[in-house]
Amino acid sequence: MARYSPSIQNLISSLSKLPGIGGKSAQNIAFHILSMDDAEAASLTEAITTARTSTKRCSVCQNFTDRDPCPICSDAQRDKTTVLVVETPRDVSTFERAREYNGLYHVLHGVFDPMKNKSISDTTISDLLKRLAEHSEITEVIIATNQTAEGNATALYLSRILEPSGITVTRLASGLPMGSDIEYADDLTLMNALRGRITLAGGKKD
Amino acid sequence: MARYSPSIQNLISSLSKLPGIGGKSAQNIAFHILSMDDAEAASLTEAITTARTSTKRCSVCQNFTDRDPCPICSDAQRDKTTVLVVETPRDVSTFERAREYNGLYHVLHGVFDPMKNKSISDTTISDLLKRLAEHSEITEVIIATNQTAEGNATALYLSRILEPSGITVTRLASGLPMGSDIEYADDLTLMNALRGRITLAGGKKD
Repeated sequence: MARYSPSIQNLISSLSKLPGIGGKSAQNIAFHILSMDDAEAASLTEAITTARTSTKRCSVCQNFTDRDPCPICSDAQRDKTTVLVVETPRDVSTFERAREYNGLYHVLHGVFDPMKNKSISDTTISDLLKRLAEHSEITEVIIATNQTAEGNATALYLSRILEPSGITVTRLASGLPMGSDIEYADDLTLMNALRGRITLAGGKKD
Repeated sequence: MARYSPSIQNLISSLSKLPGIGGKSAQNIAFHILSMDDAEAASLTEAITTARTSTKRCSVCQNFTDRDPCPICSDAQRDKTTVLVVETPRDVSTFERAREYNGLYHVLHGVFDPMKNKSISDTTISDLLKRLAEHSEITEVIIATNQTAEGNATALYLSRILEPSGITVTRLASGLPMGSDIEYADDLTLMNALRGRITLAGGKKD
């Protein structure tokens, strides 16, 4: 005998395809959904549908937005000369939360990842190149892809194709995170921290 | 400026109301949903709607089912003299997985929990009493509510109101779980394990 009826089984398997939802939590959520009152359930499915229909990509930075251009791209207060390139829309909100950056963004919606069959054309790199060609006021591209093999490969690719344009291409510093113990740092992080060391006194960074 | 557009924010807050979904995973899931293709998104919302419309409560045991009575209640092979009382439909599937129990079930869909404003009338205890009155073949009720204050209060309540009926009312044993270290056992578990100790040789259980 099946453990659950087919429709419940189907709901559980749909839920377990969502990121971070394992089998146990999919079951928990499925039974929670079955126990909801009608209004609550309708508001959940409506939230999904509405978010999907009202959300598009900003034609400038490719971030998810409900109006085009997005609030960041259309904000006159922001520095239009710098573009920070991130992998996902979530990274934009992470930078916005830190309140440290006042330039514009470009969301790649992916990285170069041969293992997952993701090529450069699966990212919005071509939109970025078009944007840089059209907006000559952009003088610096900061690459803020993740410190992973895929993120680094994408950063390397971007720096190579942007080199002829004369635009300054930078990459976020890699090193020891704040509050971390050197004892527990991995070799690559230590190597990057050493190579990227900064001079505190007497002389210049080598 | 809001971190996300209102419709994305609404989706994130709907998702974070689901059990076990924190703020971070709600964001992850929301962006995953926004990145889905249309067919995938439709199958998710349809799974929710279909599971809700096709699932009802079994009129006998109150478990979620797509046909009434449910497969377990209508299974001629099962022992009709014993009813195991659980808090949730998930508990039924946990017992079924263990393949140790061949009787019937009764799903309370809740427990007596004054802190969460849940009274006895929020459970299906009245359905259980009606069922026991109608089915005189039932001779034992096994209470398998959780080993929590609420589960124990509900078990106590049930045992009190079933006492005059003459039906045998039992409770699952409480003690040390298999594979556990006594060193890490909490005081209540140790106390229950001691009180419920079983005789291995020479004499009877006290």
